[in-house]
Amino acid sequence: MTSAVNDGRSRIIDAGPYEVRISSGLRSEFASIIATVAPAHSYAVITDDNVGPLHAGPLMAALATHGRASLHVMPAGEAHKTRDTWARLTDDLLAAGCGRDTTVVALGGGVVGDLAGFVAATFMRGIPFVQVPTSLLAMIDASVGGKTGVDTAAGKNLVGAFHAPAVVLADVELLATLPVEHRRAGLAEAIKHGVITDAGHFAELSETLPDLLAGQPAATLAAVARSVEIKSSVVKTDVREHGLRKTLNFGHTIGHAIEHASGYALLHGECVAIGMVLEARLAERLGIAEEGTADRIARVLKRAQLPVARPESLSAEQIVAATRLDKKARSGSAEYALPARIGEMANAESGWSIAVADAAVLEALA
Amino acid sequence: MTSAVNDGRSRIIDAGPYEVRISSGLRSEFASIIATVAPAHSYAVITDDNVGPLHAGPLMAALATHGRASLHVMPAGEAHKTRDTWARLTDDLLAAGCGRDTTVVALGGGVVGDLAGFVAATFMRGIPFVQVPTSLLAMIDASVGGKTGVDTAAGKNLVGAFHAPAVVLADVELLATLPVEHRRAGLAEAIKHGVITDAGHFAELSETLPDLLAGQPAATLAAVARSVEIKSSVVKTDVREHGLRKTLNFGHTIGHAIEHASGYALLHGECVAIGMVLEARLAERLGIAEEGTADRIARVLKRAQLPVARPESLSAEQIVAATRLDKKARSGSAEYALPARIGEMANAESGWSIAVADAAVLEALA
Repeated sequence: MTSAVNDGRSRIIDAGPYEVRISSGLRSEFASIIATVAPAHSYAVITDDNVGPLHAGPLMAALATHGRASLHVMPAGEAHKTRDTWARLTDDLLAAGCGRDTTVVALGGGVVGDLAGFVAATFMRGIPFVQVPTSLLAMIDASVGGKTGVDTAAGKNLVGAFHAPAVVLADVELLATLPVEHRRAGLAEAIKHGVITDAGHFAELSETLPDLLAGQPAATLAAVARSVEIKSSVVKTDVREHGLRKTLNFGHTIGHAIEHASGYALLHGECVAIGMVLEARLAERLGIAEEGTADRIARVLKRAQLPVARPESLSAEQIVAATRLDKKARSGSAEYALPARIGEMANAESGWSIAVADAAVLEALA
Repeated sequence: MTSAVNDGRSRIIDAGPYEVRISSGLRSEFASIIATVAPAHSYAVITDDNVGPLHAGPLMAALATHGRASLHVMPAGEAHKTRDTWARLTDDLLAAGCGRDTTVVALGGGVVGDLAGFVAATFMRGIPFVQVPTSLLAMIDASVGGKTGVDTAAGKNLVGAFHAPAVVLADVELLATLPVEHRRAGLAEAIKHGVITDAGHFAELSETLPDLLAGQPAATLAAVARSVEIKSSVVKTDVREHGLRKTLNFGHTIGHAIEHASGYALLHGECVAIGMVLEARLAERLGIAEEGTADRIARVLKRAQLPVARPESLSAEQIVAATRLDKKARSGSAEYALPARIGEMANAESGWSIAVADAAVLEALA
């Protein structure tokens, strides 16, 4: 994309140890970029049974001109983001003759990226991998930051590794096949990026919302690029989440709890939407956030047709109980990253996160 | 051990990102060193059902004075170095309330170290761990270098991660309870360190063999310390095994193949002993090693009562077939690190390893 870097149809963002390349129509160059950035004897494409039939064909054909290429398909859905699926994919790569000189290509949404990344992180103690996100959520969020992993019965992402991709390749035209509820769910994380660090991004997302929901490529490319810039900048500062990276958890302590307590009946982005509103409300009650912050967030999310209230099927008690499974939990409280206002997070002095007593959370959720 | 560093009863070796502390009687300080080097809210000691009853009691009691301490026991033996055991240990830590603020302590031989290290590498995307090796093999070899992982049906260590320990703590007095066949198996790796880089170490091991087999502490400490120095120095130069670290694989291409083909009926060190002799013989046939190298190696190994010939139950064909499962294998050949003479490895110009055709290996094994 050398000639197209600055034409508004294409962006290259420096995410630290790797680049995120975003453009309309990039898919025709996926294979040649992969073979240049992460050359290998063989290429193992991991995808799921939703995305595979839509997008794997041309990629496999193009990769085959650069080396051996094998396709490994998992069942779609968070319910399959497990150690069992990871073990089966690993065995599948071994059976296909993949060795150390293999590059894994994750073709799919966040679940595929997390799982394929963990396969790559642990295959013969680590082989390179490339993220090819096909969902808005994965383009905006999941494919950037180097977190890989799987869920266990006890909670989300409890097993995993930091393993940076060699490159992230996002073609916004692939989103044409994405169901609209997944487009909405992706926007939740983009809105989060606005809340935590950039009121301008928040305002722009709000203004271009109709185009974004319709999947208009130029608006989508701009939104994805700005979100990736924000996330990359945070992650570059704090890869291992000792400080600033915690701000990315805004909406996620309650969001993950709802996701888990609901048995993954809601999409991740939907849970984060609810989580952001409830955590902003909590922050207002604690005197941490400016009054009206939760309402401003809720307004944009509602226009994106995302849920903003606790699901009726879950009690406040159930949700609080589920926050204890979070990696950041301590006894009797859980850690929260809370906003001061749109565009700015609170608690910089305590490492961007504070422990909130379960009792206070219960009140806010009631 | 500040006062005892240079008294011949204690050594501290710089292994790059961490130290290896070796001494007689160090066990009385294990807990306080762990709590200083890798302080945590809770300490999860992973051991097996052989070592646990012998050594876990005093360590648990001492750790409990520094924080929460939980004990996690796996069945002993390479047959249990699996993803299943890893998953069960992980769930066991979660059930015990371990979070990110946990330090894993691996108390045991190489299997426990590899498994506990992989649990730590993947628990909530990586938590600190400390190696407390209780076998000679683990002190000399397995606990140094940051390799962690498990076996799969397809071969050894095919799944894993690089995860450096915070510190390695070796008390040679713990070897008093080690069965003599395990002491012998450990010496195989020490002898390997001599072959690959230090003819003086090779000679000294040969001279002190009776003391080493008897478990005499001063001789053992000297042998362990020199081996750890050699391995640390190699690993520091090349953590990810792109070059020099491959020399540590001497004896292991055939050794691992025998280990796998025999169904783990032989100890790892026994397989490496056979592998060294056969690979040295191969190197002589290929004109790479000085004549007599294999015989010199075999002579010392025999005096240590280690096996030096292909087990009668395995055909040359079976062994060669099993080398193809090695991480370093290519079609029709496998990679070998071969000696030029005692104390010096060959093939520096090709990255310390060369592909040898299966046919040539078959002839050497016949």
